[in-house]
Amino acid sequence: EYKKMSRSVDGLEGAGEWPIFKELLPDFNHKTVLDLGCGFGWHCRYAREQHATQVIGVDLSEKMLKTARNYTNDPLIKYLRMPIEDIHFKEEQFDVVISSLAFHYIKDFRNICDKVYQYLKPGGSFIFSVEHPIFTARAEQDWYYDEEGVRLHWPVDHYQSEGMRETLFLTENVVKYHRTLSSCMNDVIQAGFNIKAVKESLATEEMLQDSPEMKDENRRPMFLIMSAEKVNGE
Amino acid sequence: EYKKMSRSVDGLEGAGEWPIFKELLPDFNHKTVLDLGCGFGWHCRYAREQHATQVIGVDLSEKMLKTARNYTNDPLIKYLRMPIEDIHFKEEQFDVVISSLAFHYIKDFRNICDKVYQYLKPGGSFIFSVEHPIFTARAEQDWYYDEEGVRLHWPVDHYQSEGMRETLFLTENVVKYHRTLSSCMNDVIQAGFNIKAVKESLATEEMLQDSPEMKDENRRPMFLIMSAEKVNGE
Repeated sequence: EYKKMSRSVDGLEGAGEWPIFKELLPDFNHKTVLDLGCGFGWHCRYAREQHATQVIGVDLSEKMLKTARNYTNDPLIKYLRMPIEDIHFKEEQFDVVISSLAFHYIKDFRNICDKVYQYLKPGGSFIFSVEHPIFTARAEQDWYYDEEGVRLHWPVDHYQSEGMRETLFLTENVVKYHRTLSSCMNDVIQAGFNIKAVKESLATEEMLQDSPEMKDENRRPMFLIMSAEKVNGE
Repeated sequence: EYKKMSRSVDGLEGAGEWPIFKELLPDFNHKTVLDLGCGFGWHCRYAREQHATQVIGVDLSEKMLKTARNYTNDPLIKYLRMPIEDIHFKEEQFDVVISSLAFHYIKDFRNICDKVYQYLKPGGSFIFSVEHPIFTARAEQDWYYDEEGVRLHWPVDHYQSEGMRETLFLTENVVKYHRTLSSCMNDVIQAGFNIKAVKESLATEEMLQDSPEMKDENRRPMFLIMSAEKVNGE
């Protein structure tokens, strides 16, 4: 089912939040890049198109990585199969660490922030997107409908109860972790980063012209996108 | 009606978000402090109790300031009546600028951030609380109830439609301004600040023991509280 999604078929251009994510990315020219939760490798290949010198993509799913490898013909992209939590690299190995919609599957986000900080060079960038805390709060992760099936509003509940959410993604049961916005931001800050920008996914005028059904995306934020910097000389 | 609220009668200790706000405050000893939207002056007097050398409180409401002056016997606290938007001070006049639950009445938050940045000394602190974007999104600013009046969940809608919300506060119609979380944070960052901490109001175990009815406060965040710093030597 995941393979049929627009983001899987059309790659980055099929992912609604990509324009926002892309805007936060630094210049990849001559940079070493790590992609946490690389999936089919779209971001890895994009980084190379933008002249990154070396890219490492990490993902837990061998299936995903198989597809990623099939799509990739580039010796300077390396795919590693492992849980994101288990990554281990050299200190200050990367200029840029990115992650798209992976961290809400991770229990211990602070640990990831600490590792990313360690593996980034001073001045390096950390850009990631996650499902928005408003989206993950209820296990249902769905709109509230009236009897005719009309979307009345987005319901929020259990916001301060952080932790596991057993939820349905397409046809499969998936375990996600809900974190409050403040936890997410403070984990990044306390790891040592400066937050450079915070974005929330939305449907632009252009997107609404192509797909009018996306208008509901502006009724509540689905994704949170952030860029942070490892401060120079700390 | 406002005068009867716990926060008006008991002061800071009657305001649920005060422990979180207090935790973010810097040492006030020998500091000059500006309080934007000072209301009855509780925070101004607190700053002086903590040995601030000088405190200026600004509020639009002459009624509020009258009460503030009645409560205050301290020549080192000065109250000014004006819209927060109109403040004008010397560059680098203050060590600390605070604001409690006032900025959601202000249309142009970026302008405030720019001014606060200008009036703060390098290394100075900016700590403020606002109604949470999740709280201000719908004009109703209320729970969604079933037919028996049970609170089903907190409804979110119109999130990306920033701007005016005509809403009811106690018995009065009040105009507030809804801003997304990302707008709020980026306004602070783009003014030049480093974000030091982001908090969301919640009911602690201790508060729940005193007032079990506060448990709903953990179902959705009502307030957003932030501390930011004017970076030294920029």
